[in-house]
Amino acid sequence: MGAGRMGELHARNAAANPRLDLHWIADNDPARAQALAVACGARAASFDQILANPEVKGVIVATSTDALLESGLACLRAGKAVFSEKPLSLSVDALEAATVLVDPAAPLFVAFNRRFDPHFAQLKERLDAGEVGALETLHLINHDPATPSLTFIPRSGGLFKDFTIHDFDTAAWLLNEPVTEVFAWASCVIDPAIGDAGDVDTAKLILKTGSGKLCLISNSRRTGYGYDQRIEAFGSKGALRVGNVQPTTVTRWDEGGPEGDAFHYAFPDRYAEAYRRELDHFADMIDHGEAPRTGYRDALAALRLAEAAGESARTGTVIALAGGMANV
Amino acid sequence: MGAGRMGELHARNAAANPRLDLHWIADNDPARAQALAVACGARAASFDQILANPEVKGVIVATSTDALLESGLACLRAGKAVFSEKPLSLSVDALEAATVLVDPAAPLFVAFNRRFDPHFAQLKERLDAGEVGALETLHLINHDPATPSLTFIPRSGGLFKDFTIHDFDTAAWLLNEPVTEVFAWASCVIDPAIGDAGDVDTAKLILKTGSGKLCLISNSRRTGYGYDQRIEAFGSKGALRVGNVQPTTVTRWDEGGPEGDAFHYAFPDRYAEAYRRELDHFADMIDHGEAPRTGYRDALAALRLAEAAGESARTGTVIALAGGMANV
Amino acid sequence: MGAGRMGELHARNAAANPRLDLHWIADNDPARAQALAVACGARAASFDQILANPEVKGVIVATSTDALLESGLACLRAGKAVFSEKPLSLSVDALEAATVLVDPAAPLFVAFNRRFDPHFAQLKERLDAGEVGALETLHLINHDPATPSLTFIPRSGGLFKDFTIHDFDTAAWLLNEPVTEVFAWASCVIDPAIGDAGDVDTAKLILKTGSGKLCLISNSRRTGYGYDQRIEAFGSKGALRVGNVQPTTVTRWDEGGPEGDAFHYAFPDRYAEAYRRELDHFADMIDHGEAPRTGYRDALAALRLAEAAGESARTGTVIALAGGMANV
Amino acid sequence: MGAGRMGELHARNAAANPRLDLHWIADNDPARAQALAVACGARAASFDQILANPEVKGVIVATSTDALLESGLACLRAGKAVFSEKPLSLSVDALEAATVLVDPAAPLFVAFNRRFDPHFAQLKERLDAGEVGALETLHLINHDPATPSLTFIPRSGGLFKDFTIHDFDTAAWLLNEPVTEVFAWASCVIDPAIGDAGDVDTAKLILKTGSGKLCLISNSRRTGYGYDQRIEAFGSKGALRVGNVQPTTVTRWDEGGPEGDAFHYAFPDRYAEAYRRELDHFADMIDHGEAPRTGYRDALAALRLAEAAGESARTGTVIALAGGMANV
Repeated sequence: MGAGRMGELHARNAAANPRLDLHWIADNDPARAQALAVACGARAASFDQILANPEVKGVIVATSTDALLESGLACLRAGKAVFSEKPLSLSVDALEAATVLVDPAAPLFVAFNRRFDPHFAQLKERLDAGEVGALETLHLINHDPATPSLTFIPRSGGLFKDFTIHDFDTAAWLLNEPVTEVFAWASCVIDPAIGDAGDVDTAKLILKTGSGKLCLISNSRRTGYGYDQRIEAFGSKGALRVGNVQPTTVTRWDEGGPEGDAFHYAFPDRYAEAYRRELDHFADMIDHGEAPRTGYRDALAALRLAEAAGESARTGTVIALAGGMANV
Repeated sequence: MGAGRMGELHARNAAANPRLDLHWIADNDPARAQALAVACGARAASFDQILANPEVKGVIVATSTDALLESGLACLRAGKAVFSEKPLSLSVDALEAATVLVDPAAPLFVAFNRRFDPHFAQLKERLDAGEVGALETLHLINHDPATPSLTFIPRSGGLFKDFTIHDFDTAAWLLNEPVTEVFAWASCVIDPAIGDAGDVDTAKLILKTGSGKLCLISNSRRTGYGYDQRIEAFGSKGALRVGNVQPTTVTRWDEGGPEGDAFHYAFPDRYAEAYRRELDHFADMIDHGEAPRTGYRDALAALRLAEAAGESARTGTVIALAGGMANV
Repeated sequence: MGAGRMGELHARNAAANPRLDLHWIADNDPARAQALAVACGARAASFDQILANPEVKGVIVATSTDALLESGLACLRAGKAVFSEKPLSLSVDALEAATVLVDPAAPLFVAFNRRFDPHFAQLKERLDAGEVGALETLHLINHDPATPSLTFIPRSGGLFKDFTIHDFDTAAWLLNEPVTEVFAWASCVIDPAIGDAGDVDTAKLILKTGSGKLCLISNSRRTGYGYDQRIEAFGSKGALRVGNVQPTTVTRWDEGGPEGDAFHYAFPDRYAEAYRRELDHFADMIDHGEAPRTGYRDALAALRLAEAAGESARTGTVIALAGGMANV
Repeated sequence: MGAGRMGELHARNAAANPRLDLHWIADNDPARAQALAVACGARAASFDQILANPEVKGVIVATSTDALLESGLACLRAGKAVFSEKPLSLSVDALEAATVLVDPAAPLFVAFNRRFDPHFAQLKERLDAGEVGALETLHLINHDPATPSLTFIPRSGGLFKDFTIHDFDTAAWLLNEPVTEVFAWASCVIDPAIGDAGDVDTAKLILKTGSGKLCLISNSRRTGYGYDQRIEAFGSKGALRVGNVQPTTVTRWDEGGPEGDAFHYAFPDRYAEAYRRELDHFADMIDHGEAPRTGYRDALAALRLAEAAGESARTGTVIALAGGMANV
C-alpha cells in the first residue's frame, strides 16, 4: 500500500525476495500503482481489494505519514501481518489510543532501518558482548545530503519526528535503558524557506538516562559530501565506531592527497541491505509467527522523545520524560 | 552441471536471480546433485537429459577442471549458451584445437570473476577515462587465506593455471596491450607437502608488454589475515588503488590501536557481488544474444601466460610469448 | 617558574630551542628546581632573583594554577615577556581586575596549545580559506586517557576550567563569532571519588552563537585508547576533520582485522610540536616585540564560558553570556 | 664536507642537535661553503684545514658521490669519525680495495636513512619480535616524485646504484639472510632523455634468498602524488605494513569523497626524523665509541646487489651472487 518513494523501494525488494510473492500494489493514484505493479510483476488493486483477499498474508504499508497508523490498524483487523514505514504516527495521543498494539505479539512491524543495517548491527552485537566494557556515552551523527522538498515539510511532522526519529530509536536500542531527559537546540542555517515552513534544518541534542549516560545527536539537512551516518560508542575500556560507507575501496592518489570513493549519497544506497533484511524479518513474521523486532512500543518511545525534543527546542529548557520510556 | 563448491555457489545465485529459472542440476554424484537441487528448488537430472531438453537455454558448467572444455563444447553443440568456470582447460593445445570457439560471438562465457567485481570494475573505468594519465605499471596482489586440499593440487594444474590465471586475465584487461615476456619465481615456503605434490605455494612474477609497461604479481596460498585482493595502477599523473574489502566499517579503538573489521576471508564473500553480476551477464547472453564479455580468447591468452610462467619458474629464465597474445 | 610537569616540559623544549637561552629554573621546592636545572643545563634560582635580573627577557610561568596570574603580573611589572600556562586564573573577577592586561600588546602569552598544533592549524587555515564554504556547526572531541590524581582535582577548578577550557578557546578560534549561550550536562560515570571531590568526569556541551552556529563538545576523563583529540567542522559545502594522531603508519594485518599503531597516549606526545611552536612564538615576542597570539582576552573569554558551563550543569538550564564575549 | 643538497640538510640538523657542535663547512665552491656556514653559525674552511684540526672529532662527508670513499678514508686516516652519505662508492672494486674498512669497528657510518626512520624501525622491531610469525616475502615500494636533473644522471651511477641502493639495504636489513639471486626489469617510460643519458626511470626487481624468501622491489622516478615509501612484510601469521606519511590528519569530505592530506613530497620531509636520528647515532659514535650501525659491509652488500641488478636488466637473466653476501 503506497507506491511513493518508500513504497517503490520496498516493492522492488519484495519482488526480488525469494521468500515473498508480491501480488498487488495499491495507491491513491491508480496510474502510479499500475506503473509500479508492472515494474514488479504484480497487479494494481485497491486497498479494500487487498484487505478482503484471504490469500494476502502481509501488507507493506508505505502510505503518506498521516495515513500509516490507520492503514496499519485496518490491515491488522483484516488479519494481515503489517510492515509499516516510520513514524507510525505524528501524534503521541493517537498512538496511545491504539491500545490494540500494546500486545508485543501484535504483528505490526515498524521499519526502523538502522537496526537492520549490518554495520550498526555488528556494533550493537559487539557492544552488548562487552568488547569495550560498559557503555558510557554515545554519539549519533545523522546528516542528510540535501533538504527535502518544501512541499513535504509541512506534513513531515518536522525534523524531530521525520528525521531524528531514527536517532531516538537508535539511542534507545544501544543505550539499553530509558532516556529520562532531553535537551535540543535547533537552527535554520541552510535554507530560510525551511524556517518559513515552520521547521528547522540543523539540530544538536543531548539525551540523558537515569544512570547518567549521555547521548549526543547531530542532525543536518545538508552535507556537501553525501549521507553521513555514523555512530561512536564510548565504553569503559575503549570505543566502537561505525564510519560512513563507500561503495568501493578504490582510492586515487594524486598531488592533492589520497581520495577515497564518495560516500553513499543517500538512504536508498546506504541502507539497501537493511531494507532487504527488513523484508527477511517480515517473511519470518509471516512464515513463523515471529514477533516484530521493532513495533508499537519502539515507535511510541521514539515519538515521545521527538515531542520532548521539539518542546525543548521551542522553550530552551530541558524536558524530562515522565517515567522515562518505562511506561510504554 | 557440477554440484561442487563453485557449482553450488552459482546454482544458489541462479535460483535467486529473477531473470533466470534454474531447472536442473547434474553431477557425477547423483546424491550431491539431488541435495543441491532440493536446496535450490530445482530437480536433479543427467548431463544428457539437460542437453537434450529444448527448453534449456543455457548451462552453467562447473565440473572438475579437466572436464570443463569438453562439457562446454557439448553444450554449445546442443545449442545452449554456456557459462563456464575457469580455467577453461589446462592444456593450451586442447584449447587451440577447439577452433569452433574462435568466433567471438560463440556463446561461451568464461567466468573470470575479477572483471565483474565492482571495485576492480570502477578502477578499470577510471583508469580508461585517464584519471591518472597513461598507465605505466601495475601491481596485482592475490593471496589466498589457506592452502587448498592436498587432493586437489595434483589435478589443479598448479598455482599458475589454477590461481595466477586470474591475475593473467586481470593484467590483460587492465594493460590494454599484449604481454610479451614473463618472468616468475616460485617457492614452497608454506607447506612442504605442496612441494611434494609438485606444486609451489608462493610466487612473484613480472610481466612486460611491448611498450615497456611492467606488471608485478604476488601470489601466496596463505595469509593469516584473510583474502588479499588488491590492485595498484600507477599512471603518469597519479595512482589508482583497490584495497581489501571489509564487511563493515566497524572499528574498535583500544589501547592496542584502532582495529578495523576483518577482511573478507575468501572468494565466496569477497566476490559475492561479482558472481551475481556474472549471472546477470549470462542472462544478457541468453535474453539478448549479447556476446560473452570474456571467452575463449581471454582463456587462451591467460593459459599461455600460465604455461610461460611455469616454464620461467622451472628454468629461471625469461619466457617470450610468440607474437605476444596477438595471435589469439 | 615552576618545575612541575608542564614546567619541565617547557624547560626541556626551551633548552633545545636554538633561539632561546634557558638560564634559570625556579620552584617552591628548591630540590625540584635544582634537578630540572641540571637536566636542562640551567641553574636554580628564586623567583625574586629571576625578576631582578635585567638579563632575563622572558619568563615561562608554569606554577600551580592559583599562582599563575599573580606570577605573570609580577613578571610583567618587572619588564619581562611572559609565557603563561592556562588557565590564567580560576576567577573571572580576578581576571577582570587585572586591567593592565586589557592592552592587546601586553606581552603576556597564554599558552592554549591547540592553536599551535599543526593539524588543528591546517584545519583552521583551510576553513578560513572557504574550502568547505561557510562554517555551520562544529564538533570538538576532547577525551583524556586517564583521570587526574585525586589530589589535583580540588585545586583544578573542575573539569570545565581545567580541561574544557581548551575547547572553549578552540571554539572561539574556529567559530569566528561570539558564543552567546551555553548548555552543559555532566556526569560522574568513571570514578565516584571524582564526584566525592566535587567534580565531574564526563560532559557534553552545546554552544550557540548569535547567528545560530552550534558547537558540540565532548569531554571524558578516560578512554581506554589514549588521547582523543578530534575536530569536525561542517560547512555549507563539505566538512573538514582532524583525526587522532598515530606515531607511525605501521599496520598489522591478522585474523582480527587491520590494526593501526596506537594513538598518542596523552598531551606530551600529542602536542609535542605545538609546545615547540609555542616557544617559537615566545621567541618572536621577545625578539621582535610580536603581540601574543593568545592572551588575556582569550583567557577571559574561555573562563567566562567555563563558568557559564558550570552554572548550566548545576542548574540544568541554558546560560546566556551577557553581550556574548564581545565585552572582553 | 660538501655543501650541496645533502650537505646542507645534515649541516642544519647538526647545528640544531644539542649533542653536536658544528664548527666548519667545506666545499669545492668556497662561496657555497661560506653561505651555508653563515646559515648554520659555523665557519667556512678547506678540507685540509678540517682534517688537520685536532679538535674535530667527526666529519660529515656529503661530497659528490665519486669523492665519498676517498674523502671518508682521508678522514679516517686523520683520526676522525666519519658520517658518509650513500652510496659510499659506485665501484665494487674500489670498495673491495678499501680493506681498512673491513673492521666493523672502523668508525665510518654509511647513512642508509631508511634504517633510522621511526616507521620502518618499528616494523623491523615488531617483525623481529615475531608478531606475524616468520617472514616469508617482502614488498618494497620506492617511488620518487620527480625525475632528477639530467646533469646528475650521468654521474649518479644509474637508478640501481643511486636509488635502488636504499632498497637493497632495506631488504638485507629486513630479510636477515643473504640475497643469493637477483632479477631486474627496467624501462624508460617517463622521460626518453633519461634513456638517452643511459639510464632507466622505472624498474621492478625480485630478490631471492637461499631459503626461498622472495622480495619485490618497485622503483619509479615519478609519481604524481609525492614520495611513495612503503613496505609490506608478509609472515606466516599475518602482515606488517608501513604506509605513506601525511603531515597532518586533516581530511576534507566533499562530493568527490574523503580526501586526506597530501603525502610528504620528497625525502627531506619524509625522512626528516631519520636524518636527525642519524646524527644522534653519529654523536653516539663520537661520544661513546659506538660502532656504526651501518657501514662498509652494508655499503658493499648493497652495491653488489646494484651491480647484479644492472647486469640482470642488461642481459634479461637471473644473476647469482657468488656466496650470497656472505663473503662481505
